[in-house]
Amino acid sequence: MADLDVTTMSDLTREAALAMDVADPLAAFVDEFDLPAGVIYLNGNSLGPAPKEALAKVRTAAQDEWRTGLITSWNKAGWFELPYRLGDRVARLVGAAPGEVTVSDGTSINLFRVVCAALSLRPDRKVIVMEGSNFPTDNYVVQGLCETLGRGHTIRFAEKDELEAAITDDVACVVLTEVHYKTAHILDMAGITAKAHAVGALAVWDLCHSAGAMPVDLNGCEADFAVGCTYKYLNGGPGSPAFQFVAARHREGLKQPLTGWWGHEAPFAFDRDYAPAAGIGRMLTGTQPILSLSAAEAGLDLAERAGPERARAKSRALGELFQDLLAGRLKDTGFAMGSPADRAERGGHIALEHDHGYPFMKALISRGVIGDFRAPTTMRFGFSPLYLRYVDVWDAVEILRDIVESEAWRAPEFAAVDAVT
Amino acid sequence: MADLDVTTMSDLTREAALAMDVADPLAAFVDEFDLPAGVIYLNGNSLGPAPKEALAKVRTAAQDEWRTGLITSWNKAGWFELPYRLGDRVARLVGAAPGEVTVSDGTSINLFRVVCAALSLRPDRKVIVMEGSNFPTDNYVVQGLCETLGRGHTIRFAEKDELEAAITDDVACVVLTEVHYKTAHILDMAGITAKAHAVGALAVWDLCHSAGAMPVDLNGCEADFAVGCTYKYLNGGPGSPAFQFVAARHREGLKQPLTGWWGHEAPFAFDRDYAPAAGIGRMLTGTQPILSLSAAEAGLDLAERAGPERARAKSRALGELFQDLLAGRLKDTGFAMGSPADRAERGGHIALEHDHGYPFMKALISRGVIGDFRAPTTMRFGFSPLYLRYVDVWDAVEILRDIVESEAWRAPEFAAVDAVT
Repeated sequence: MADLDVTTMSDLTREAALAMDVADPLAAFVDEFDLPAGVIYLNGNSLGPAPKEALAKVRTAAQDEWRTGLITSWNKAGWFELPYRLGDRVARLVGAAPGEVTVSDGTSINLFRVVCAALSLRPDRKVIVMEGSNFPTDNYVVQGLCETLGRGHTIRFAEKDELEAAITDDVACVVLTEVHYKTAHILDMAGITAKAHAVGALAVWDLCHSAGAMPVDLNGCEADFAVGCTYKYLNGGPGSPAFQFVAARHREGLKQPLTGWWGHEAPFAFDRDYAPAAGIGRMLTGTQPILSLSAAEAGLDLAERAGPERARAKSRALGELFQDLLAGRLKDTGFAMGSPADRAERGGHIALEHDHGYPFMKALISRGVIGDFRAPTTMRFGFSPLYLRYVDVWDAVEILRDIVESEAWRAPEFAAVDAVT
Repeated sequence: MADLDVTTMSDLTREAALAMDVADPLAAFVDEFDLPAGVIYLNGNSLGPAPKEALAKVRTAAQDEWRTGLITSWNKAGWFELPYRLGDRVARLVGAAPGEVTVSDGTSINLFRVVCAALSLRPDRKVIVMEGSNFPTDNYVVQGLCETLGRGHTIRFAEKDELEAAITDDVACVVLTEVHYKTAHILDMAGITAKAHAVGALAVWDLCHSAGAMPVDLNGCEADFAVGCTYKYLNGGPGSPAFQFVAARHREGLKQPLTGWWGHEAPFAFDRDYAPAAGIGRMLTGTQPILSLSAAEAGLDLAERAGPERARAKSRALGELFQDLLAGRLKDTGFAMGSPADRAERGGHIALEHDHGYPFMKALISRGVIGDFRAPTTMRFGFSPLYLRYVDVWDAVEILRDIVESEAWRAPEFAAVDAVT
């Protein structure tokens, strides 16, 4: 675990942070969000805050489309098209082409679908490589799929540095999350995908912590399948539907397990037997939650206007400022970096380890600085680029310093073990 | 196909219909809905209209919980509990016990889950009995499941009158929809479930067209599994999440294919390996679309306050009035009942067949009477009990009579074949 290293930014003044905000090319985006007063929100890696336009869209979907348009809105308001229209928007953010992505259902459901599809393309191979320490729902989904298939598939768990050796010619596919949910370390999507292909395996990527935070180039990496959520850095709202990507070269003839009427070649023919749609539509199953889906479009619009490169540059700079200020003000107080110290090796958040991480985080939240905590000692701080200001980071570190130095964190209300956030 | 039969209600006056509304014990519920002016909405069998409280709930979920509460709303606003809380509310409407139902994902996904679970309980049997003419997504889901499992499962399609003979001792489970999506004919859930059990098979019921329209007694019938949507007679909003029922006796040790972190015994332990939750929670997969889920609670509340028996009584009476008035005013104009003529044998809607059904329906919609059309000749009219008045039915038939007699339906704009509704 890396120590905190003092740098030139470690004694940056608040005025200098304000000057960074003035120079920030994404500064205007903060006005697109409806953030509550008094909150410094460092948890957009878990749930993004509400874009004003998302609140407007859900109002429109509820009041104008559902209430007034009723059943006619399926066509007139374009409800049927939402998975495709939003999918094409996500495609532009993750290096995919139109018709390669839909937004529908949840990440876990979509992962089940694409991994099953991937396995069907490699029927003679039984090994799936996964990074066991990453967000466990992916493990659970693949474990359930293996058991359901009952054909002897097994997961070969390998951590970051073990992955290359684990990808051997018995592997059907790798199922990996690009940015680690806890440490934020980045896996080399291009290199690992190439390694997988070199041994005849396929690559399935989970982009939950990538999309909206950093450039992703699925087709540039020749990725085969991908999934990801829209409610973290894409600010789509709580539990907003997830995306799934199928490389165009795999689409024709592709089989997926969750066949339903939205994936039928002619849904309104009401044919007795299933026949898959020609395009990415075959990856759909059933009716989608329109209110949640409608809200999600606003965040995609903002991400597209900001652009993944600018988003990444600012997110990195925010994280680096946090890291440097910590080193200046909180060195030798027991903190250690749980994330890679090199900002190029980590995604949009920073894991900070401290034995008192739990009461520290509760004390921070009580003062409006919202991050989260993962047992036993990890405090996570997300540096989502569109609504955070450099001065927010400055203030957050100052509040943390005050909590530590004043020993405010020792107050009994911060010791009780209940859910943080 | 039954002809229209003139009865004592066939020449009911508009004043008499108004008097029926005055006497209607559910009359007050119309004020709970936010219906657009000038619309007679006979399509609640497809998408229910907006309860005022649903619009309020989605506003609260968006503005207060997401915007203001941010990540803390997962606990403070009870977002994590919604699938269970709403599930227990659905349970009271369908004759299930607390802890036997969740509301989550969509009907097709839930059907995949419960049919797969049912098959795992009958590993030596390979036949699934389904009514092929019913809403085809159920066929598609089971076809996809059979292919995914690759263990030789096949569907034995049987229509209503063939079902009893089809349920033989090689059947693993029946997967049937209680109320037919097109004709509204009701299958005998108690009798068919008993027949299935008598040969050692399980019974999976789709309640999409039952829940909210009529009493359902899953446990009284000893049903094994069930699914259903919340956006038809339960007025949950477009694509609102669906429910799934697992009889308590099957819960322990039950395997389902879509294992995800919401179904884990300790989701926030972030364990590497899956271990199912003890209760109905094991049927959950991943994060749910909270805005859509929140809206759905309002309709469940209304359905519970009205009560399934009163809802059914009024729905039957509305449908019967429609049928009788048609016979009085439109006899010998080419209409025939596509639904059972006996109101006891049909669910909440009526299918009316006419060679000109398509332009008739378009003309009706242009005058504010909203039903839908299913090729080649079926007009569907839904008699959802909570917001329709007897006088609405009277007016709808009068408008249809006028369209037919005036030949207004021959206008060119009603001939163009595009989507109806």
